[in-house]
Amino acid sequence: MATLYNLEQIMSVVRSLDLTDPISEGFVAYSNGEALVPPVGEIIFNNPPGETHIKYGHIRGMDNYVVKIASGFYENYKSGLPSSSGLMLVFSRKTGFVESILHDEGYLTNVRTAVAGRICADYLAPSNITGIGVLGTGIQARMQVDYLSSLFQCKNIFVWGRSPENAGLYEVDMKAKGFDVRIMPTPGSVAEKCNLIITTTPAKKPLLFIKDIRQGNHITAIGSDTPEKQELDSNIFEDADIIVADSISQCQKRGEISRALKTGVLQKESILELGRIIENPGLLNRGDKDISVADLTGVAVQDIQIAAAVCNAFRARQK
Amino acid sequence: MATLYNLEQIMSVVRSLDLTDPISEGFVAYSNGEALVPPVGEIIFNNPPGETHIKYGHIRGMDNYVVKIASGFYENYKSGLPSSSGLMLVFSRKTGFVESILHDEGYLTNVRTAVAGRICADYLAPSNITGIGVLGTGIQARMQVDYLSSLFQCKNIFVWGRSPENAGLYEVDMKAKGFDVRIMPTPGSVAEKCNLIITTTPAKKPLLFIKDIRQGNHITAIGSDTPEKQELDSNIFEDADIIVADSISQCQKRGEISRALKTGVLQKESILELGRIIENPGLLNRGDKDISVADLTGVAVQDIQIAAAVCNAFRARQK
Repeated sequence: MATLYNLEQIMSVVRSLDLTDPISEGFVAYSNGEALVPPVGEIIFNNPPGETHIKYGHIRGMDNYVVKIASGFYENYKSGLPSSSGLMLVFSRKTGFVESILHDEGYLTNVRTAVAGRICADYLAPSNITGIGVLGTGIQARMQVDYLSSLFQCKNIFVWGRSPENAGLYEVDMKAKGFDVRIMPTPGSVAEKCNLIITTTPAKKPLLFIKDIRQGNHITAIGSDTPEKQELDSNIFEDADIIVADSISQCQKRGEISRALKTGVLQKESILELGRIIENPGLLNRGDKDISVADLTGVAVQDIQIAAAVCNAFRARQK
Repeated sequence: MATLYNLEQIMSVVRSLDLTDPISEGFVAYSNGEALVPPVGEIIFNNPPGETHIKYGHIRGMDNYVVKIASGFYENYKSGLPSSSGLMLVFSRKTGFVESILHDEGYLTNVRTAVAGRICADYLAPSNITGIGVLGTGIQARMQVDYLSSLFQCKNIFVWGRSPENAGLYEVDMKAKGFDVRIMPTPGSVAEKCNLIITTTPAKKPLLFIKDIRQGNHITAIGSDTPEKQELDSNIFEDADIIVADSISQCQKRGEISRALKTGVLQKESILELGRIIENPGLLNRGDKDISVADLTGVAVQDIQIAAAVCNAFRARQK
């Protein structure tokens, strides 16, 4: 019989885990063709609107494969419920039997996404961060900043969100954690103040344009993970010096890069894959004035690696 | 927190359920465009060989949607384990939250497949069954026959399997249930004796050819659910009078029909969808000498309907 773990149990082990290395290794395995990652499964609902993504796969040599189901139902707040939910299923590679059910309610997806953002910033952001810009005021807007704080000294956060109320809540929460937060009136005014920008909204129309981006800046785009969502105008990809995808094949169908490829301003050959950079940072050769963009659509290797780390931690506790 | 039900709990409620009506209604909803059924997700492993299918979707108006994960790992028998396993996840359509986890170990997939076979036989098989032919000696070879016994008086089973040992076990098991079983030397010799044939093997090369099939016979093909598997030679589809698919769109990519379409002997327009026949049996107009074939690749509506029936039964018990 499979073991079901709840969110509280999962959070209690995640706190003590360093996930940067395993998730980095997951990206490297992916880029080296050592991962079996079928296309993302998807159900999209209207009225009430909601979407469920199924990401799944296997990394060669591992004892397990993972199926992750994560949902976003954007009107849940009306009932006082979180929009995100989900679970991860860990199967034996040998028998196909499900061994562990991690009912993380979307938490592990949030963590692995924040870790991926941290990895991007580590390799791509300028060395002297003067301001961190954040578009959006939800969970990723918080967690991305939290996970960056072990990497940079900078405590200056410039934030923009559609809802002034949510921006106010964000300010309160992040100030309590020791950040200096300024709410900005537009996405462009955020970009003006910062040299590291993180976009975390579910926008379907561009929020940032190339005219907004200062030389030497880095953008990590988190929000768009479907063909419809878009936070960055394609003209950013036309002029950016370094363009990175978590998965080139997935970003051809989903996320910011898919939009830029469609308009023809970007060619597939100009895109670097994150795993290649992790394996060989020399590929980058970033200049002081270079603009870089990383597009994260979320790859099953992240789910596989975080699920394996959590299951290993549970096993170690049982000993 | 989601509730996890184990196989024993699930079996105890399934025994008391009549599943023919809900699964029939699922096929009708599907054929009427009332179901959201994305393409099947799939991971295929080698060494040891195994496959995992993810079937998922929603029927309009229902409170839930379902993600079903079912695996077949064909060397599990070496460790004394069943090849099939799996689970069904029942989500709230309103919030996206997972409500019930049915850890059925593949049992509900077996049941809904057997029920679909019974539905096909009910609409398509000749009225006077003189012999039931079975290719394969595994779980479906048993369950299809079990589920037919409430429909037909016929107790004469003619069976063929690759392994004489497994055929012997099949004979013992089915005799104990009151069937008269004869083991046949070839698939063709099975077809010669029967007017209802069920194929349940994972064969990748044709076992039956049009020369083997008597006039007036019906075949329900269960075994092939991937683009690679094949039990029926395409010449059967060239000459059959009635050809039925559980899902025309799915059967264009998987199962027997996909092979026949590829060779060009069958046109899409000649295929009837099962839900249409259930809704309007007059579409059939079967003649005494007609040969009919139903190709079942397994559709998520079956999983949705059986999962809903099981969850309703659990709720009724709690009252």
